[in-house]
Amino acid sequence: MRQAGRYLPEYREIRAKVPDFLALCYTPELAARVTLQPIERFGMDAAILFSDILVVPHGLGAGVRFVEGEGPQLDPVRGAKDLSRLKPEAVAAVVAPVMETVRLVRQQLDPKIALIGFAGAPWTVATYMVEGGSSRDFAATKAWAYGDPQSFSRLIDMLVEATISYLDHQIAAGAGAVQLFDTWAGALSPDQFERWVIDPARRIVDGVRRRHPSVPVIGFPRGAGSLYRRYVEKTGVNCVGIDTAVDPAWAAETLQPMGTVQGNLDPMALVAGGATMRAEAERILIALGKGPFVFNLGHGIVPQTALAHVAELSALIKNWRA
Amino acid sequence: MRQAGRYLPEYREIRAKVPDFLALCYTPELAARVTLQPIERFGMDAAILFSDILVVPHGLGAGVRFVEGEGPQLDPVRGAKDLSRLKPEAVAAVVAPVMETVRLVRQQLDPKIALIGFAGAPWTVATYMVEGGSSRDFAATKAWAYGDPQSFSRLIDMLVEATISYLDHQIAAGAGAVQLFDTWAGALSPDQFERWVIDPARRIVDGVRRRHPSVPVIGFPRGAGSLYRRYVEKTGVNCVGIDTAVDPAWAAETLQPMGTVQGNLDPMALVAGGATMRAEAERILIALGKGPFVFNLGHGIVPQTALAHVAELSALIKNWRA
Repeated sequence: MRQAGRYLPEYREIRAKVPDFLALCYTPELAARVTLQPIERFGMDAAILFSDILVVPHGLGAGVRFVEGEGPQLDPVRGAKDLSRLKPEAVAAVVAPVMETVRLVRQQLDPKIALIGFAGAPWTVATYMVEGGSSRDFAATKAWAYGDPQSFSRLIDMLVEATISYLDHQIAAGAGAVQLFDTWAGALSPDQFERWVIDPARRIVDGVRRRHPSVPVIGFPRGAGSLYRRYVEKTGVNCVGIDTAVDPAWAAETLQPMGTVQGNLDPMALVAGGATMRAEAERILIALGKGPFVFNLGHGIVPQTALAHVAELSALIKNWRA
Repeated sequence: MRQAGRYLPEYREIRAKVPDFLALCYTPELAARVTLQPIERFGMDAAILFSDILVVPHGLGAGVRFVEGEGPQLDPVRGAKDLSRLKPEAVAAVVAPVMETVRLVRQQLDPKIALIGFAGAPWTVATYMVEGGSSRDFAATKAWAYGDPQSFSRLIDMLVEATISYLDHQIAAGAGAVQLFDTWAGALSPDQFERWVIDPARRIVDGVRRRHPSVPVIGFPRGAGSLYRRYVEKTGVNCVGIDTAVDPAWAAETLQPMGTVQGNLDPMALVAGGATMRAEAERILIALGKGPFVFNLGHGIVPQTALAHVAELSALIKNWRA
């Protein structure tokens, strides 16, 4: 997760060549280089497309901008009256450079190494669109979703359609698997989770699978807790990403019989390195390594991560024999 | 949870009389008034002491201050060298006004209405002390906890002792139950959760129970997900608070056989009111209302909550027949 990024000096060098983060996402030659950097340095088994979950709302015309040192900012969509501002028909052209990135990466990547595309899940993307950026309590999004679920579902439906098309194009361009990031899935009660997390994910899985039956879809409903099981059962994802708080032994027992599990080292254990990192990684490998499994972090890698720790972890995983 | 507060006009009136939030916590007459306000207005079955989880670090000399419009700020404790700055022997005198608040509330409260005291759990309090305030990723706290667990456990041990004494005094002053808030418990992997959430909570439960065998202890390891079960089994709490993401049906099946469950309406459902609020509340009452249960929110009430919604919810719960 966020394999590429600020912890890599070669990333910072490329980042300095563009005025802002979105420009990097939309410059295929540079985004492809950045996607390949961690593979060249550490030799992972799969590359993660370098992009951002906010390119879809950007394509819809939600006014996305990244201000250095602050989070992303968007023109808030506050209720049904603002929906007409959004332009689903504009998305494909805006995100076209991302497809070019996928093509360039696929050309340059060893055919044995997978390329994973991704998109933000509708609930999480909607929170950014409604709040106008990051949020701690999603007050405006929930006020709309709980107060007028019918009109809120029009925003979600728009995102479901745009996401299916976006992932479809990534796969057509060469992505071998796609991941759906629902970073804020853990903020909802079970009923709301069914409606705004599970149902949209199920429709996206169906839409992608109809077009590409053999391409695995990975779902990551971060913070879902006891609801992970229902998410996997009802969405039909091939693989589920689990966050750091999930017990790998519980995931092996409950989730792995239904499909592949991906996770879940604490990114801060990778920062700490040493005995804690090794013990945490081995605990995960012991619990999940005998079944279908993708080793990953429980959330994104952070800038202060030491390169030597990533190299050590990578070697530990590659040399692991279940 | 946070029953009193800014959503009440009578609270805002009292808050305006003191220079800052901590002054309100340390002025027993005013803190007692504020504790009683929601009971007088809505007639809940239990009052929650008005105070803050940061009074213990304030008592330790961690330089706590509340700046209007920002989160709390503390002088960061960054590693073993800073531990000597903390003064466990000073806590009792600093927090003495809180005990006076408890006594005043108990005097004025109908004897049939419970008074619940509380403290922050060591892990959560430590994150504020180490980060110097709120945090999204707890980078400094985890760097210390994972990199040098032995010296970090000295901070945790200090907080365990201070918390036992603090809760002991609250009970002696008249609190009929006490709650341990571990707001950031969900940020840890299972092994770290055992070490920094479960183990300290178990020691606090033991310490309180030795002195007050019949006083219930409520634990709230927010975001614990699949680890809630282990938390209840291993800490021995009488009651467990669950956050909004926990499925009440799962809690009824898994947690309620071991003790009382408390939770878990989304505070934003209370803001929304109407059909969503009623449906969510009824779902919780149906799932949990037949066993030992305390209706509560899944997290703190927010300032924009309408008084009419609280009154409607309160009536709905009181009139509920399982």
